[in-house]
Amino acid sequence: MRVVVPFAPDRPKTRLAPVLDEAERAEFARTMLDDVLDALSTLDRERSLSLDPFVLSTAPVDCDAPVTVDDRSLSDAVNAQLPDSADDPPAAVVMADLALATPDALARLFAPDADVVLAPGRGGGTNALVARDPDFAVDYHGASFRDHREITREAGADLAVVDSFRLSTDVDEPADLVEVLLHADGSAFEWLDGAGFELAVAEGRVEVERN
Amino acid sequence: MRVVVPFAPDRPKTRLAPVLDEAERAEFARTMLDDVLDALSTLDRERSLSLDPFVLSTAPVDCDAPVTVDDRSLSDAVNAQLPDSADDPPAAVVMADLALATPDALARLFAPDADVVLAPGRGGGTNALVARDPDFAVDYHGASFRDHREITREAGADLAVVDSFRLSTDVDEPADLVEVLLHADGSAFEWLDGAGFELAVAEGRVEVERN
Repeated sequence: MRVVVPFAPDRPKTRLAPVLDEAERAEFARTMLDDVLDALSTLDRERSLSLDPFVLSTAPVDCDAPVTVDDRSLSDAVNAQLPDSADDPPAAVVMADLALATPDALARLFAPDADVVLAPGRGGGTNALVARDPDFAVDYHGASFRDHREITREAGADLAVVDSFRLSTDVDEPADLVEVLLHADGSAFEWLDGAGFELAVAEGRVEVERN
Repeated sequence: MRVVVPFAPDRPKTRLAPVLDEAERAEFARTMLDDVLDALSTLDRERSLSLDPFVLSTAPVDCDAPVTVDDRSLSDAVNAQLPDSADDPPAAVVMADLALATPDALARLFAPDADVVLAPGRGGGTNALVARDPDFAVDYHGASFRDHREITREAGADLAVVDSFRLSTDVDEPADLVEVLLHADGSAFEWLDGAGFELAVAEGRVEVERN
């Protein structure tokens, strides 16, 4: 199955600006992309799923997968990759900032045989999906999970929802770095660890601090 | 299996104070407890798991399950309910603010046969667990998921981790209400809906607003 991994190297992770400068954000975003591609590749190898991942990037990027450059909006660029007619093959979309994605978590995205499979992100987003129905299209603006559920319903397609903490965790804000430090062990974790980030407990809440 | 549902009716959900007054927080916390008990009871009925849920409360509460009152700290009160010796039966702990918990999500907590099963909460917490090893004990202060992983390792017990977005979502802060409005349909959702809460999209982020 074709697996689209959208990536925007030109505007990396602006909400992490309170803790990382622009060059660091670009580096860190790149480690997360590498981890996602690595998890997909391991899953494909271990379970022979015939996954065909490629990066859908707003600008050229040198990485361990084919790259298609499309500088349109995320929704327009992704929709151009989804099936248009019943003859088109299905496609999956997996966000590039899922630093907690493991082969096991991603396997659950590909397991259901439903027309549309959605993995919700925290805060109303859609972090990963599979589209087998040509009438399904993405709209990433706003509460996309709700919209994608509605678009699926309107298409008369059947829906499966993947209940995964790992796939629900996209890394956008400083608080999300807690999850990477606690639950990940790939290059994004290594990068944060090397940059001096560690867990700190303040007033009963877990945060990150940088040394 | 005995299932401990800790509940603190006297200090309900202080971090929701920006959007709910104290009486409202008490009511809302109570709807979440009801939803968790209902999900456990449905799971038990549908799958004959012989679950035996009870509320471990800091003060008397009238609800649809037996209540044990223990006003010690959360960790002390829970540890008094966990197995102490190899002769003691296993026990589970499920937090009372898991408004997104469904029978299917909870079934995944009881499925592994491991000595210790942990369901991480977002932000380093432990939202649900099963303890079959008498050397396991809880410590909810700080990054409890990390501590529980370490306590399991020190006990020489084997560990299973449940990857569930629903079980990872405890409702503590206004941003968490987004998840209830999007993904729940029980009495907590009904209460929020009746109180005038709805989703709002502001600067690309999904929040709640109250009418």
